[in-house]
Amino acid sequence: MSLEFPAPSASKADLEEGAVFSPKFDDNGLITAIVTDADDHALLMVAHMNREALSLTIETGIAHYYSRSRRQIWKKGETSGNLQTVIELLTDCDQDALLVRVKVAGHQATCHTGRRSCFYRAVELQDGRAMLREVDSHRHFDPDHIYKS
Amino acid sequence: MSLEFPAPSASKADLEEGAVFSPKFDDNGLITAIVTDADDHALLMVAHMNREALSLTIETGIAHYYSRSRRQIWKKGETSGNLQTVIELLTDCDQDALLVRVKVAGHQATCHTGRRSCFYRAVELQDGRAMLREVDSHRHFDPDHIYKS
Repeated sequence: MSLEFPAPSASKADLEEGAVFSPKFDDNGLITAIVTDADDHALLMVAHMNREALSLTIETGIAHYYSRSRRQIWKKGETSGNLQTVIELLTDCDQDALLVRVKVAGHQATCHTGRRSCFYRAVELQDGRAMLREVDSHRHFDPDHIYKS
Repeated sequence: MSLEFPAPSASKADLEEGAVFSPKFDDNGLITAIVTDADDHALLMVAHMNREALSLTIETGIAHYYSRSRRQIWKKGETSGNLQTVIELLTDCDQDALLVRVKVAGHQATCHTGRRSCFYRAVELQDGRAMLREVDSHRHFDPDHIYKS
């Protein structure tokens, strides 16, 4: 049985201060999910949920997303073993984004490149151009090994 | 003079491991920006940038966003005084999201409701329904006072 989510209230006060959870899905039926490590608040990844993924996440306590590339429900970590147990789920003032505070199993890595976080490069100005500099090169697993087969 | 951002590379290796910053803007010309406190990593807000806002942010070191409701560049904190100085700007593996690590001036509050973070309510199951529970009620400023006039 999946959860029903009511349409967003037209009342700003209800949306911002009410107890009714009425997530605002975009035109593609998705809502942005910000995923952080519940222990130290590190930002691990940004993903998206549709209604089904959100319902599964709330009901099972394991983070589920919607893969826009594969166009299907994505139980994060099903292949790599890095399942995410949800410690706390929050929404923001206008209820169009979610914060998923998780505990990561397995390799303690979230990015498919093997790094802990998907945010491993800083944007910096170099000679008037915005360039990238790697700030985390540590791979917790070998992606070629994990995702092969 | 604003920065030019090249179109995303078709090469996954270049996108994920290269030094060229080629942010992927969506169909509306926007990219998601996750804003955290540079000191303790707390998630403060989620916003969006267009090319101009991103360029201004990189060039000035002060966070600029694009307001989807007002359809204009939004220098966060211009009204409330809570300007955001960018300590570090990062992008993720596929370069379709940004992490903006900031130091907040003024009231140390980011949410327009006066709270430190926009994520002040937790989603919890109550009698089979997903409901919201306030986890932060502290207002650092009175929004009616700050945004009046």
